[in-house]
Amino acid sequence: MKKLNIGLIGAGFMAKAHSMAYATMPMFFHPAPAEAVRRTICDVTIESAKEAAERYGFEKYTTDWRDIVNDPEIDVIDIATPNDSHAEIAIAAAKAGKQIISEKPLARTTSEAKEMYDAVISSGVIHMVAFNYRRTPAVALAKKYISEGSIGKVLNFRGTYLQDWSADPNSPLSWRFKKDIAGSGALGDIATHSIDMARYLVGEIAEVSALSQTYIPERPIQSSGSDKLGTVKSNDNVPKGKVDVDDENLFLVKFENGAVGSIEATRNAWGRNNFLTFEIHGTLGSIYFDYEKRDELQVCFAKDGDDRRGFKTVFTGPNHPYGESLWPIPALGIGYGETKIIETYDFFKAIVDKTEVSPNFEDGYKIALICDAIAESSKTGLWTKTNCNNVK
Amino acid sequence: MKKLNIGLIGAGFMAKAHSMAYATMPMFFHPAPAEAVRRTICDVTIESAKEAAERYGFEKYTTDWRDIVNDPEIDVIDIATPNDSHAEIAIAAAKAGKQIISEKPLARTTSEAKEMYDAVISSGVIHMVAFNYRRTPAVALAKKYISEGSIGKVLNFRGTYLQDWSADPNSPLSWRFKKDIAGSGALGDIATHSIDMARYLVGEIAEVSALSQTYIPERPIQSSGSDKLGTVKSNDNVPKGKVDVDDENLFLVKFENGAVGSIEATRNAWGRNNFLTFEIHGTLGSIYFDYEKRDELQVCFAKDGDDRRGFKTVFTGPNHPYGESLWPIPALGIGYGETKIIETYDFFKAIVDKTEVSPNFEDGYKIALICDAIAESSKTGLWTKTNCNNVK
Amino acid sequence: MKKLNIGLIGAGFMAKAHSMAYATMPMFFHPAPAEAVRRTICDVTIESAKEAAERYGFEKYTTDWRDIVNDPEIDVIDIATPNDSHAEIAIAAAKAGKQIISEKPLARTTSEAKEMYDAVISSGVIHMVAFNYRRTPAVALAKKYISEGSIGKVLNFRGTYLQDWSADPNSPLSWRFKKDIAGSGALGDIATHSIDMARYLVGEIAEVSALSQTYIPERPIQSSGSDKLGTVKSNDNVPKGKVDVDDENLFLVKFENGAVGSIEATRNAWGRNNFLTFEIHGTLGSIYFDYEKRDELQVCFAKDGDDRRGFKTVFTGPNHPYGESLWPIPALGIGYGETKIIETYDFFKAIVDKTEVSPNFEDGYKIALICDAIAESSKTGLWTKTNCNNVK
Amino acid sequence: MKKLNIGLIGAGFMAKAHSMAYATMPMFFHPAPAEAVRRTICDVTIESAKEAAERYGFEKYTTDWRDIVNDPEIDVIDIATPNDSHAEIAIAAAKAGKQIISEKPLARTTSEAKEMYDAVISSGVIHMVAFNYRRTPAVALAKKYISEGSIGKVLNFRGTYLQDWSADPNSPLSWRFKKDIAGSGALGDIATHSIDMARYLVGEIAEVSALSQTYIPERPIQSSGSDKLGTVKSNDNVPKGKVDVDDENLFLVKFENGAVGSIEATRNAWGRNNFLTFEIHGTLGSIYFDYEKRDELQVCFAKDGDDRRGFKTVFTGPNHPYGESLWPIPALGIGYGETKIIETYDFFKAIVDKTEVSPNFEDGYKIALICDAIAESSKTGLWTKTNCNNVK
Repeated sequence: MKKLNIGLIGAGFMAKAHSMAYATMPMFFHPAPAEAVRRTICDVTIESAKEAAERYGFEKYTTDWRDIVNDPEIDVIDIATPNDSHAEIAIAAAKAGKQIISEKPLARTTSEAKEMYDAVISSGVIHMVAFNYRRTPAVALAKKYISEGSIGKVLNFRGTYLQDWSADPNSPLSWRFKKDIAGSGALGDIATHSIDMARYLVGEIAEVSALSQTYIPERPIQSSGSDKLGTVKSNDNVPKGKVDVDDENLFLVKFENGAVGSIEATRNAWGRNNFLTFEIHGTLGSIYFDYEKRDELQVCFAKDGDDRRGFKTVFTGPNHPYGESLWPIPALGIGYGETKIIETYDFFKAIVDKTEVSPNFEDGYKIALICDAIAESSKTGLWTKTNCNNVK
Repeated sequence: MKKLNIGLIGAGFMAKAHSMAYATMPMFFHPAPAEAVRRTICDVTIESAKEAAERYGFEKYTTDWRDIVNDPEIDVIDIATPNDSHAEIAIAAAKAGKQIISEKPLARTTSEAKEMYDAVISSGVIHMVAFNYRRTPAVALAKKYISEGSIGKVLNFRGTYLQDWSADPNSPLSWRFKKDIAGSGALGDIATHSIDMARYLVGEIAEVSALSQTYIPERPIQSSGSDKLGTVKSNDNVPKGKVDVDDENLFLVKFENGAVGSIEATRNAWGRNNFLTFEIHGTLGSIYFDYEKRDELQVCFAKDGDDRRGFKTVFTGPNHPYGESLWPIPALGIGYGETKIIETYDFFKAIVDKTEVSPNFEDGYKIALICDAIAESSKTGLWTKTNCNNVK
Repeated sequence: MKKLNIGLIGAGFMAKAHSMAYATMPMFFHPAPAEAVRRTICDVTIESAKEAAERYGFEKYTTDWRDIVNDPEIDVIDIATPNDSHAEIAIAAAKAGKQIISEKPLARTTSEAKEMYDAVISSGVIHMVAFNYRRTPAVALAKKYISEGSIGKVLNFRGTYLQDWSADPNSPLSWRFKKDIAGSGALGDIATHSIDMARYLVGEIAEVSALSQTYIPERPIQSSGSDKLGTVKSNDNVPKGKVDVDDENLFLVKFENGAVGSIEATRNAWGRNNFLTFEIHGTLGSIYFDYEKRDELQVCFAKDGDDRRGFKTVFTGPNHPYGESLWPIPALGIGYGETKIIETYDFFKAIVDKTEVSPNFEDGYKIALICDAIAESSKTGLWTKTNCNNVK
Repeated sequence: MKKLNIGLIGAGFMAKAHSMAYATMPMFFHPAPAEAVRRTICDVTIESAKEAAERYGFEKYTTDWRDIVNDPEIDVIDIATPNDSHAEIAIAAAKAGKQIISEKPLARTTSEAKEMYDAVISSGVIHMVAFNYRRTPAVALAKKYISEGSIGKVLNFRGTYLQDWSADPNSPLSWRFKKDIAGSGALGDIATHSIDMARYLVGEIAEVSALSQTYIPERPIQSSGSDKLGTVKSNDNVPKGKVDVDDENLFLVKFENGAVGSIEATRNAWGRNNFLTFEIHGTLGSIYFDYEKRDELQVCFAKDGDDRRGFKTVFTGPNHPYGESLWPIPALGIGYGETKIIETYDFFKAIVDKTEVSPNFEDGYKIALICDAIAESSKTGLWTKTNCNNVK
């Protein structure tokens, strides 16, 4: 089997998820398009890099990502760093002719995203952005139902991504609350997943009308390097620093194809954990998905008899997308890992087949354009065009 | 016990609900503030009026609502007609010094609503508009939690009212699809209930950004007088007539107090029946309600321990608002009737105590202003002020 | 319209439910088979009887139920007293030629139930026992699906009736905890509803293996006359009295037709309010019902495609049993009252048509036999025949 | 880090799950107690064994499990074969001084299970039986709530394990339907998981009253070697063979500590996929779990205020058992793999610490005794003692 040498940059929680996928993808997808060799991992200090290499099964480690990008034996660059280094790394990697997968959002800004997109296009490498949730089998099943016409013409889309890990004012001021590193707050971090769902399932977004809020203007300054999200609380004596990103985004959407919709994303919704949902109404049916119950897709078909119509809960399994490769019975259980395993499979397949994969840097760039339009609209109060259809 | 003589104008499904409430409210609320005497009912033909009187237990019947308004023995005028006659009847009733309850929306247009509001103010009668859903005990419990501070400061509101009875293009062209009678489509018919919830639970709405859609531009012309909603389907040979109202409304909301939100209302959502929901996030907790499961309120309190925080399903019963007067065990079951029984109790109590009741014509008028802003915004694409705070 | 003069014996919460049904049934079912005239109500003291007459709209009141049974103008005797008086009243009513509806369970003991059954048979009156939950439209829809073969041959039944109003040791020692009045505890009070469901939907029960528990052996003695269920808590100084009935019943069931099942009933299940559920598996599908979400029936049809099979949530409305007579849109909301309104309709129809109605005293007697077998089995530990097929 | 050399016997779906766990456990639990070296895998043919070694990352492969048991470099024997070889392999492995984990049920019969148990006791090795579901974090959280007294004294337990993969009469006659290989049907395959939950959460089972059913007496004979569960359907021309195991088990349970309960297990429940549920009522609260929604535990605490009591949905995450080692946000998603990863961690920890782990062969043996009592009771109709308290 073909082997692909991986260089993984970043050693936070995403390193765990990606390493798990590299180690196990061929156990699920058999025969696998290629096998991952976990070659080198990079983290900020030599101690943490060494520890990450041991933990995640990498042969080598470094504190300088350039060591990886410049290593001729590396085939794939996996970017799992905070957002402020995505562009620099990706552009260097593209120039070095590496295949690239980057965590989302693609970049802090649209201009960064455009440079990244231009770089991969001119170098001709395979590129992917890790909006993994669309690889949940139930989401792929929604795509199948829509594509085959089972719910007719799509009329509207209603998406949410609600979490609560930043609802507590004492949850720390991690890099995710700093504009210079993250680019934006809930917008780039989680709204982008909803936008990816909307584009995947309905089509390109043409215009938005948005409003943004920052609910908690300052947070306790965090000890260096940690990215514990909201689960580590500070006491009141910790000095506070300024939050300069959004906590909440609410926006209306017009799709190119005439469908309409709304999306809300916030990390301040007590009781919602990873509440990535969508509801789609079509002329012949409806679909509802909630990632918190990710084994299930709910679907209503208009053509069912009047005495037996309703939302049906379909648990995904061997009869559904990717199902033959996963577990033999529905509800044995899709976890976060499986979304990354599928993502890795599709990425490797694209590399081996030399085809495009989606979502890629073009998608990541367009999503950045949409985020720009959202941020713009929330300032001006005007419907704002995304200009996605000007790309290419 | 004080008796109030009722004149009920209109004999459709609302007549059933209101008559049920008049007949049974004192069985639940004991002692009742007053007892209803079902005096006269009005419908369009003498046969249907006679039948309605028998069916709903009225002593007399007529085809001319003026007979009722002019009857000195009538205390209460109950307006349950299509929207195009609300204003004329209510204004006459106010002039005649009657207490008035009107079905929602208050009127077809803001100017009608304003005239109605002015009329009741100048005559000094008690007035109510029948947004009954806020009287669901679980909604009243949400109000209680918010008022007492259990979820902290309200940050945002997310409302939906989704139904599917008009999703089928063969569902008939009832008056609800005709602008000259209904005033608007889903906007007046159901979005107003969500708006009422938002105002009741969060506060006054200051501005909106909206979009509207008409999905099904023509429908089969209905045989006279029928108001069977979507349950009676036509065959393809029935001639079709034009729909000139909205099927869908999606809008962002800014409240006077700084909270934000979104609302969606459509009667074209396959699989949703009476999906009137709201989710409210506060600084100390969250609330979720779905009328399809109306015995339940879901609430998450931030102050619960980190190892046991989550949405809790509270079934309303004797320990909750209105509970002592309803059924002795939670989940014996609140139905549509109970919302009207409670509404009648609160209305009669206001009449007897000579106090205001909410929602009243002022609320109905302000909701009309908000609907105007929604319709305006969906045309201009601009954030539009509601001007509610200019009333009075 | 034919009028039926009602004598209602008992003025507790059931009086409210029955009176509501008498007052409003013809508003829903039109034309109604007959109209109820609320003639006389009976309660234990003259004050409470007078108050009940006013509250529930009865023309007369008495403290002696014999006044009602002996009143030649009374057509229908409605028995809504504690269980210890059902037999005496029903037998006298049957001898007086009255039509009879009795609250459940039919009696304290099988011998009482048999006497009651014999009495109505020999007098030829119409008789009904008020297991109202099977009249929930969603339950009637389950019956329809089963009868038409939509889920194939029924293999098994799994029922629960869980409440929590007696879970608190400080909830009072009402008559429901005293064997001489109630006959039994959770068994007669709520397990009988599950048994009624099982017999209605699957068939006659042949044998049982059971176990019973009394979790709370003594409770605070209640002030006279009150029947507030668990919602009124006593303080610790109130003297306690002995509970001599069961708190929990768990039993396995063999049906005459070969199906099997299990039923659990307890009023000590914290967090369950009126959790009357059943799950039925057939060769071609499954059905699930939970009364706490009584607008819904969940059904899975095997014949749905492998890529779209699952439990479907059907909200009952105009397209389902009794639906044309109830509310025009699903999920407007079925409450407890509607189950009693439907019950009254079916009872009156039987009276007018001179036909049998189900469940009747024969059913009530057979359920008493089954309860006897459960109690016997829980003592002996042996599978115990119900002898239901020896009746008649 | 200590390394443990693994010999995995069996290459079906369990080989995937176990291999995934071996490859990734140290990524989650850091520092891990030991690292797994995937040394040798065994399957029935040399081709399939070779393929399995490549797929699951094993260095060597064989068709003779004795090669593995006799290999002095192997530390751990992992038995993932059909049930008929568990005993022979485990006994040989114990004699060879290997640490042993066996898939469930431990054996086909109690006598086999006893021999296995005796063998590991006399050899002093660490032993575990792979009832992995109790390692779902939400189940571990249930255990924590019970242990700390949060729901008071446990009164009863209600378990189900419902699947539908064998509901279709055309699903193939795999070894799971043959008594000589499987030992029993749904009883050993899935009821044992419910029994494991009951013993883990409530305590030892003293007596049972049971009934068993075989719904589908013959099934299409399957082509050799395949174990595709119900997802591969045969056409009607395939010759059929006899099913000699149970399809359904329903039993009442008395625990040693006085609690009672019921359990149902069937693989013929259309619409249920992996519906492993339990509901536990205690004197101070209740717990409900459904593995199909395995990120969630539902819990009701009696001590919550009367106006806010109800079942709460707690999504497990970093604040719950094993949570620090899994994903950083609740509802990112626990899948089947995570249950095996945790199982492997606890097993390795026991090996390194030389302590016992649970469930082990003693538990597996006692569960076999309970299954014997169930089978016996379903034949005799009598309550049957399990004799678990005679073990040791």
